[in-house]
Amino acid sequence: MKQGRIIIVSGPSGVGKGTVLKEVMKDDPSLRFSVSATTRAIRPGEIDGVHYFFIDKPRFEAMLQNNEMLEHAEYAGNYYGTPEKAVDEALSQGISVVLEIEVQGALQVMRRRPDAISIFIAPPSFEELARRLNGRGDTPPDVAAERLRIAVEECKNAPKYKYTIINDTVSEAAAKIRAILTAEACRSEYTTI
Amino acid sequence: MKQGRIIIVSGPSGVGKGTVLKEVMKDDPSLRFSVSATTRAIRPGEIDGVHYFFIDKPRFEAMLQNNEMLEHAEYAGNYYGTPEKAVDEALSQGISVVLEIEVQGALQVMRRRPDAISIFIAPPSFEELARRLNGRGDTPPDVAAERLRIAVEECKNAPKYKYTIINDTVSEAAAKIRAILTAEACRSEYTTI
Repeated sequence: MKQGRIIIVSGPSGVGKGTVLKEVMKDDPSLRFSVSATTRAIRPGEIDGVHYFFIDKPRFEAMLQNNEMLEHAEYAGNYYGTPEKAVDEALSQGISVVLEIEVQGALQVMRRRPDAISIFIAPPSFEELARRLNGRGDTPPDVAAERLRIAVEECKNAPKYKYTIINDTVSEAAAKIRAILTAEACRSEYTTI
Repeated sequence: MKQGRIIIVSGPSGVGKGTVLKEVMKDDPSLRFSVSATTRAIRPGEIDGVHYFFIDKPRFEAMLQNNEMLEHAEYAGNYYGTPEKAVDEALSQGISVVLEIEVQGALQVMRRRPDAISIFIAPPSFEELARRLNGRGDTPPDVAAERLRIAVEECKNAPKYKYTIINDTVSEAAAKIRAILTAEACRSEYTTI
């Protein structure tokens, strides 16, 4: 059976990553989201092993010690990370695993797994991103401005990704990601005559 | 304007390269075949600048001397080659240029232009290729056997190409080439945010 591939997807808040990925992954059983591990407390409605693997701090630190995390970060006093074993189990079943992660985690995965397909999703323009960030209506202007500033910084990392997709429309961006997955499967190192 | 790309396509005789490329290129004005130069005599029905650039031997040798050929070969006492200038003119107009060439020429272009997109088209199996070679009906068995032997040798070069496509059906192979062109245009080095 053909191995699955790791697919790293990053992009600034408000760019529409989630919507594009939903469009790419619907009706495609060969694609699955990675489930992260976290030490933060489980919240109402969350299911262990679906939204996150909820584990305690000593367990997370032991996994780090044993080099079992594809990538990890600390945020607001809690650890977040991607357990490598679950990813590799999916890959060996021919399922490609989508990691929707921020830039620092993405760079960790790229270094560790150079065969990963890395995709940065960028806004058509920062004016448009500002509109999308404000357009939610529930964001105070200073928070939106700060998010925009962070987005501009994040987009400077796009060249570190193998592919950069401008999210003009969801259907075009989704079609481009599908084309990338098709093309990557045609790379000679993954093809046997 | 976005530059065009050089697209190298190789594959053994009988694999169906021409049919697949015709399918990919129809109704797509952003793709054009490269026109080779040759020192062989023009034949009835051929048009200079369309089928080949017909030039004499001293002119061809002068072009070689001036490093004006993307690739070249000698065959049956005549030179064949791809003048780089005509290719670059098309690229600068945003047109991608398809070079349907044999392996040795392809390797020359890959060395000279590492940004070229190289695609090897392979048969589903050598049994199937043998059927396709014999199926033409006009090929003596010993000639077909020799072509098959050459095809087996040629296919050993597939790993030197960036992409390998198995030509199961024309429409699937054409769709894969289109996906490759879409994906290559999404590579971060060709995208400006």
